[in-house]
Amino acid sequence: MLTLYHAPHSRSTRILDLIYAMGIADRVTVRIVSVPRQDGTGRRDPLNPHPEGKVPLLDHDGVMIWESAAIMLYLADLFPAAEYTVPEGDAGRGRFLAWMFWYAGVMEPVIVHGVAGLDHPVLHTTYRGMAEVTDRLRKALEAGPWLMGDRLTAADLLISSPFMWFKDSTPDDPLIRDWVDRIASLPWQATVIELENWHMAAA
Amino acid sequence: MLTLYHAPHSRSTRILDLIYAMGIADRVTVRIVSVPRQDGTGRRDPLNPHPEGKVPLLDHDGVMIWESAAIMLYLADLFPAAEYTVPEGDAGRGRFLAWMFWYAGVMEPVIVHGVAGLDHPVLHTTYRGMAEVTDRLRKALEAGPWLMGDRLTAADLLISSPFMWFKDSTPDDPLIRDWVDRIASLPWQATVIELENWHMAAA
Ligand SMILES: N[C@@H](CCC(=O)N[C@@H](CS)C(=O)NCC(=O)O)C(=O)O
Ligand SMILES: N[C@@H](CCC(=O)N[C@@H](CS)C(=O)NCC(=O)O)C(=O)O
Repeated sequence: MLTLYHAPHSRSTRILDLIYAMGIADRVTVRIVSVPRQDGTGRRDPLNPHPEGKVPLLDHDGVMIWESAAIMLYLADLFPAAEYTVPEGDAGRGRFLAWMFWYAGVMEPVIVHGVAGLDHPVLHTTYRGMAEVTDRLRKALEAGPWLMGDRLTAADLLISSPFMWFKDSTPDDPLIRDWVDRIASLPWQATVIELENWHMAAA
Repeated sequence: MLTLYHAPHSRSTRILDLIYAMGIADRVTVRIVSVPRQDGTGRRDPLNPHPEGKVPLLDHDGVMIWESAAIMLYLADLFPAAEYTVPEGDAGRGRFLAWMFWYAGVMEPVIVHGVAGLDHPVLHTTYRGMAEVTDRLRKALEAGPWLMGDRLTAADLLISSPFMWFKDSTPDDPLIRDWVDRIASLPWQATVIELENWHMAAA
């Protein structure tokens, strides 16, 4: 059994996006939990088994899977027929993994440092900055139409996710803006938005 | 063909560790490139195809794979007989992916912020700190003997890698110290150390 511990309008919304994109909503039980929010609302939820009280967390038959990118790769691989992964054995598999890890290990830190207004030579050496992130995305989208070329994958949903929350943070680049717009107007997005508003109101 | 772009005594040393651990040194061509070092030596190498001039980079038949954790997962999956992965279909796969992404997306940032001496509420909310990292490792090693239980995997090599470079940064916890010592004394480590010293002298 697959159970997603989820808080509406949070980092775990991207997992919901992937679930609806893949058409596997009937295979995953969504449990709403509370998390402390930036605005002071919410609290650590004793019903959330995440060791730090965070979301998302996926429970697959008792095995706990944390970290958004891990959960998205895991689900995409688990249901290969939905075609949101680049499966093992495909030539692009390594590049697909690189995008997923680059998001977690480089792009999200760059965004977090930006939000915190932090600048430091060690951060720049290790992560570079938004200019380099923009450059990587633009180069991939020049080939496009998706990061992995012809196929829309979990990498597009993960990597575009911060721009879905904070539209204004989208790099001012026509190729990237078009890519974000294409993702924002995918047919299942309306369902997730409605569902999230409903979750929010019920919470 | 598999080619690793490598700089000795750097983040890409952990890829060499995995290659020797897995016994696949005859399957991967290692190309030494120069990178700018903290001490001011080295320079960006025009022969390094990494878009930011970094290491490691793995080229598999022309597909470029960047990010240490992506490369380690890819190699571990590519040679399942070496048993450094938890393959798809195994119950522990999701937990294995979670460790790999948690290293890239949480533990390495926590270490980098520590090196830079940075502290900020946004960093703490997003990443927590070394106390929580220590806690996660200790809990996993209480079950042990390795992070994934009975099997030594790429996750152990990746997650212990900062403590291999900076022994003094190892959390002061007997279970973690013992785990680091066990990894440091694995039989192939002597080969990698010798090889790295040789690469360094030749560079
Ligand atoms: N690296 C984690 C970050 C998870 C995370 O920080 N989630 C936030 C929601 S946006 C959370 O649960 N915050 C509550 C808290 O920090 O206690 C991931 O991507 O899964
Ligand atoms: N997130 C990357 C980081 C790679 C990285 O920063 N490598 C360093 C070597 S320790 C490098 O190439 N530095 C040279 C530079 O920043 O130009 C990974 O883990 O692969």
